Amino acid sequence: MAHIELPAGEMGIMGPVIKYPKTGELLRQLRDEIIRGESILSVGEREMIALYVSARNECVYCSNSHGGTAERLLGVERDVLAEVICNVETAPISELMKSLLSIAGNVQLGGRTVSDAQVARARAAGADDKAIHDTVLIAAMFCAFNRYVDGLDTPMPDDDRYGVKLQDL
Amino acid sequence: MAHIELPAGEMGIMGPVIKYPKTGELLRQLRDEIIRGESILSVGEREMIALYVSARNECVYCSNSHGGTAERLLGVERDVLAEVICNVETAPISELMKSLLSIAGNVQLGGRTVSDAQVARARAAGADDKAIHDTVLIAAMFCAFNRYVDGLDTPMPDDDRYGVKLQDL
Repeated sequence: MAHIELPAGEMGIMGPVIKYPKTGELLRQLRDEIIRGESILSVGEREMIALYVSARNECVYCSNSHGGTAERLLGVERDVLAEVICNVETAPISELMKSLLSIAGNVQLGGRTVSDAQVARARAAGADDKAIHDTVLIAAMFCAFNRYVDGLDTPMPDDDRYGVKLQDL
Repeated sequence: MAHIELPAGEMGIMGPVIKYPKTGELLRQLRDEIIRGESILSVGEREMIALYVSARNECVYCSNSHGGTAERLLGVERDVLAEVICNVETAPISELMKSLLSIAGNVQLGGRTVSDAQVARARAAGADDKAIHDTVLIAAMFCAFNRYVDGLDTPMPDDDRYGVKLQDL
């Protein structure tokens, strides 16, 4: 049972977004802009950032949803993304994505922990201001989406697609 | 120096919101709706939730900004809000606000930690579904705003109005 009454049969963020459409519509537009707006990062790469942060917030609904989309768009198997979550440095992804996920991981812990050295590494790997901005905003917004979904205790899927527990990282 | 180039002289969230107006405008509309939309909670009470979460994320810009507004709207001194941040149970505020700030504090830690007992306490104090929803969404969104401001290392005020350090709580 969720903490508030929600439309029957809706999973995760869908229930509160349908029940409260004013904020729901703004959250939807914001998600679309940060994931699909103009950027040097592909939609799949940005879905990977969304998954990375959601997994580290242990939000099963968001991890399954955005991880599944990232798998399809990037053409990779679930195991690859599970490795991204657990050890970004050894995962088979670009130096640019490693450097941006490193920043996203620190934004998830708290924005003040992002270092100049992490940003310099991302720039050396090809990131421009917009890519760094978008990474920080995607990571920040998924800290909100994850807390919105789990703070209301919305219905979540039975399967945990990546099965990563923060205590194991 | 912020992690990206930002308009000169702008503090906190203003720089990235001006530089990237598409997401900036959506973030502004969302803030207005969660703080000023229809609710049994006053704008001042919702600013207090924004302050509470921002202080616990040690975001000086957001704490000063939303705390200052809460002081004016609620007609209280800075010391009262500093006590709210440090010990909500002994602060001179309503049982409804104590119960909602307790929920907001757990959303800040991670949405999965909000308990049925906390929600039952808020309902007993007069909270309806919308007030519980709004509390969770305000707390979630300020976890995003705080991370956006600090993750980009935007310029912050010299004075820390509440001066609360998480390690002291």
